[in-house]
Amino acid sequence: MLLHTIFVIALAAEAMTAALAAGRRNMDWFGVCVLGCVTALGGGTTRDILLGHYPLIWVEEPGYLLVTIAAAMFTIAVARVMERLRLIFLLLDAVGLVVFTIVGCQIAMDMGQPAMIVIVAGLITGCVGGVLRDVLCNDVPLLFAGELYATVSAVTACIYFFGVKAGLPVDAVTVVAAVIGFAFRTLAIVFKLEMPRFVYAPVRGNQSSKR
Amino acid sequence: MLLHTIFVIALAAEAMTAALAAGRRNMDWFGVCVLGCVTALGGGTTRDILLGHYPLIWVEEPGYLLVTIAAAMFTIAVARVMERLRLIFLLLDAVGLVVFTIVGCQIAMDMGQPAMIVIVAGLITGCVGGVLRDVLCNDVPLLFAGELYATVSAVTACIYFFGVKAGLPVDAVTVVAAVIGFAFRTLAIVFKLEMPRFVYAPVRGNQSSKR
Amino acid sequence: MLLHTIFVIALAAEAMTAALAAGRRNMDWFGVCVLGCVTALGGGTTRDILLGHYPLIWVEEPGYLLVTIAAAMFTIAVARVMERLRLIFLLLDAVGLVVFTIVGCQIAMDMGQPAMIVIVAGLITGCVGGVLRDVLCNDVPLLFAGELYATVSAVTACIYFFGVKAGLPVDAVTVVAAVIGFAFRTLAIVFKLEMPRFVYAPVRGNQSSKR
Repeated sequence: MLLHTIFVIALAAEAMTAALAAGRRNMDWFGVCVLGCVTALGGGTTRDILLGHYPLIWVEEPGYLLVTIAAAMFTIAVARVMERLRLIFLLLDAVGLVVFTIVGCQIAMDMGQPAMIVIVAGLITGCVGGVLRDVLCNDVPLLFAGELYATVSAVTACIYFFGVKAGLPVDAVTVVAAVIGFAFRTLAIVFKLEMPRFVYAPVRGNQSSKR
Repeated sequence: MLLHTIFVIALAAEAMTAALAAGRRNMDWFGVCVLGCVTALGGGTTRDILLGHYPLIWVEEPGYLLVTIAAAMFTIAVARVMERLRLIFLLLDAVGLVVFTIVGCQIAMDMGQPAMIVIVAGLITGCVGGVLRDVLCNDVPLLFAGELYATVSAVTACIYFFGVKAGLPVDAVTVVAAVIGFAFRTLAIVFKLEMPRFVYAPVRGNQSSKR
Repeated sequence: MLLHTIFVIALAAEAMTAALAAGRRNMDWFGVCVLGCVTALGGGTTRDILLGHYPLIWVEEPGYLLVTIAAAMFTIAVARVMERLRLIFLLLDAVGLVVFTIVGCQIAMDMGQPAMIVIVAGLITGCVGGVLRDVLCNDVPLLFAGELYATVSAVTACIYFFGVKAGLPVDAVTVVAAVIGFAFRTLAIVFKLEMPRFVYAPVRGNQSSKR
């Protein structure tokens, strides 16, 4: 129940930050709503399509679509205020990352998937929404730019999966995974922790070598 | 029957305008065909994947693929002539938008989906092909740039859904929805009607705020 | 068996060249792995989603994911050496193109699909991974830039489909299709054979004409 409430709040927060990204590109109101929905619901949708897990959650429960659309439109009115709340939205985004990851793991485990697929399902649920947003905004996905974001999702997914597999109470595992994941992401933001990058400059660049 | 004929003409028209977009980027003949197919069939394909509605129409009836490939290749020969027919293709595109939307609504209603999902199915069928085209061409989707395009699709879908739900004859509702949608889109082009945009310039831009 | 071994080698090779592409964009290690997986497994995944062919191969057998992730990470260590092996990777990429195409055709034929869909399934399996890589890297897909790449895939798929349909032994057809496809791609690279391009510069460029 609590997880579900936090899930809905996180959906709205993801839609609102995506709406700001739409505003930075001067998109119209329709684009704002689409970008909000794709960012908030795109991760779960991608997971369900890859796992063949139908119906998609927003098809079964269109209320999720309404929440994201309402949050995106609301952003247009309150964008200036949100700016001062940047820190809160950064934290809400971290909450969303962790909660989406756990929900993704739960669904894959309910389907009886093995460890690797459960963790990938968590990662996809937590991270793909932002990738789709960046593709629609015509950016190289921010996800690949060094921030400890996917790593937080992977760690959260591992704690959840192995905790549940070890027979610990699911509620306790959920709380522990969420708290550790959230703390990890917060520390990564505060201390600007980064993944190492792979920097490769070819000696001779030519078209064929791109393949 | 008539709807089906118009549907095939609209598929061909969408493929031809997409082929021109490929030509503006100097794509090869294969790219021209792919962009034509993705633009013409991508909306319906996305809808069917999201709704879990298999087989996809072009898998069940590969003739649709042949029509779009033929139309795209034909465009290479007649591009110079098409330029003078720009107005006709703009109108054919409006026809396609409206017809695709109605077909999308029909399929979702046949599956027993609720209002929200039927309208979203119509929107996706009408509009997503162009978004996929723009992503493959590495542009920010034109769909989000202010034109009254998705709005026309949404209005058409609403008229169709609520007309059919009200028990009116399906054929009559189809014609009325199509005519109103087409007229609305034509007026939007003629009078350059636009959706309001959300223009947001952050005071302090930094990487984290992109999330 | 042999086909399966070559398939796994080709997966690794595709992941490694994709990892180099990630390195050229200074992506982090996570991005390197994602780009490797999407490039190596994205074509087969797209085919299976379009055909409704579940479970996806890497969901059923997560070992494929491990191979691509390991290959991508390994690339970070050996990038400088790979540069001198550029020719070998170009040939491995040609092997992958041909083998992926044949595997895609096999799966579609096992599902009883008609000729057109079998060939499209082969094309998608062989070529879409690279398109997804380019979209994530924010490039116009290289696939549409004139190289004889998709054409090789289409020719291989046709030989395979019509050979098997003609009642010839499947193993013999597989070898012949693979050898001809590989030779064709190699000749295309050596002699810089290209698809004709569609070059179209509109006289009057305006927004509406983009549709």
